[in-house]
Amino acid sequence: MRHTIAVIVENKSGVLTRIAGLFSRRSFNIDGLSVGATDNPEYSRMTITVEGDDEVLEQVIKQLSKLINVIRVTELVPAESVERELAVIKVTADKDSRSEIMQIVNIFRAKIIDVSARSMIIEVTGDEEKINAIVQLLRQFGIKEMARTGKVSMIRGARVIKA
Amino acid sequence: MRHTIAVIVENKSGVLTRIAGLFSRRSFNIDGLSVGATDNPEYSRMTITVEGDDEVLEQVIKQLSKLINVIRVTELVPAESVERELAVIKVTADKDSRSEIMQIVNIFRAKIIDVSARSMIIEVTGDEEKINAIVQLLRQFGIKEMARTGKVSMIRGARVIKA
Repeated sequence: MRHTIAVIVENKSGVLTRIAGLFSRRSFNIDGLSVGATDNPEYSRMTITVEGDDEVLEQVIKQLSKLINVIRVTELVPAESVERELAVIKVTADKDSRSEIMQIVNIFRAKIIDVSARSMIIEVTGDEEKINAIVQLLRQFGIKEMARTGKVSMIRGARVIKA
Repeated sequence: MRHTIAVIVENKSGVLTRIAGLFSRRSFNIDGLSVGATDNPEYSRMTITVEGDDEVLEQVIKQLSKLINVIRVTELVPAESVERELAVIKVTADKDSRSEIMQIVNIFRAKIIDVSARSMIIEVTGDEEKINAIVQLLRQFGIKEMARTGKVSMIRGARVIKA
């Protein structure tokens, strides 16, 4: 099963190495990972997506909480959370295909952030399924390059995950 | 100086640990990191943001290229690239403040992705400065929680970074 874990960490060198090491020693492959600032400059927030056995993962989460510089570990339940990912996609585009690509971009409420004579760069946010859907549609034009951020996830409503 | 490095890696357990270890042994603190799928399921793309001495970083980049499962390492030049980050921000919002928050959301072409009686969740993409600017404006209402993905960066035009 796919799991999403939010980890609040202190901004110290080495914390990412310890966290990544804990997953790789258990042969968990991290599918997606995002690490970014929180509203407190002392802490960063990681969102880790892993596929794996529920019981083993429960142990990993317990061990994570005990690591140095790890402040808080929370598993997010998809039904109670909003999940968003950012994808930046470079597609082959010339004067003949450009307007068709722009239609797809509009339908997905995506944005065009760069245009050249032979290419376009598209920015799109959404859950994994939405991003997979636009990628599938853009494939016919030729995807030259794609970068995705890994998702961030947040509990709906007023409840918070904080240091 | 701030540096942005794109790394194409094979989807193997342990590759993140080796990469993070290389930075922490040199006492480089990774400010931002995103790891996500590319258009080839065998490879992931990491975008690493680090602050540090140019010469030391040049050595780190050389060593990165030699790691197992690392396919390609490219430093991105800001002037030639588009940089985007995703932030998800939960703000305190009630019936009195909601419309003012919605004005700010519209100005920044952000999106409201959740509303409750006492809170709102806002999704916004942009470069670091744009996100810092909306965060600054939302602070007056009370930021309950924030998660940012770390940026992705792509060379403008038709030139590509690929496995």
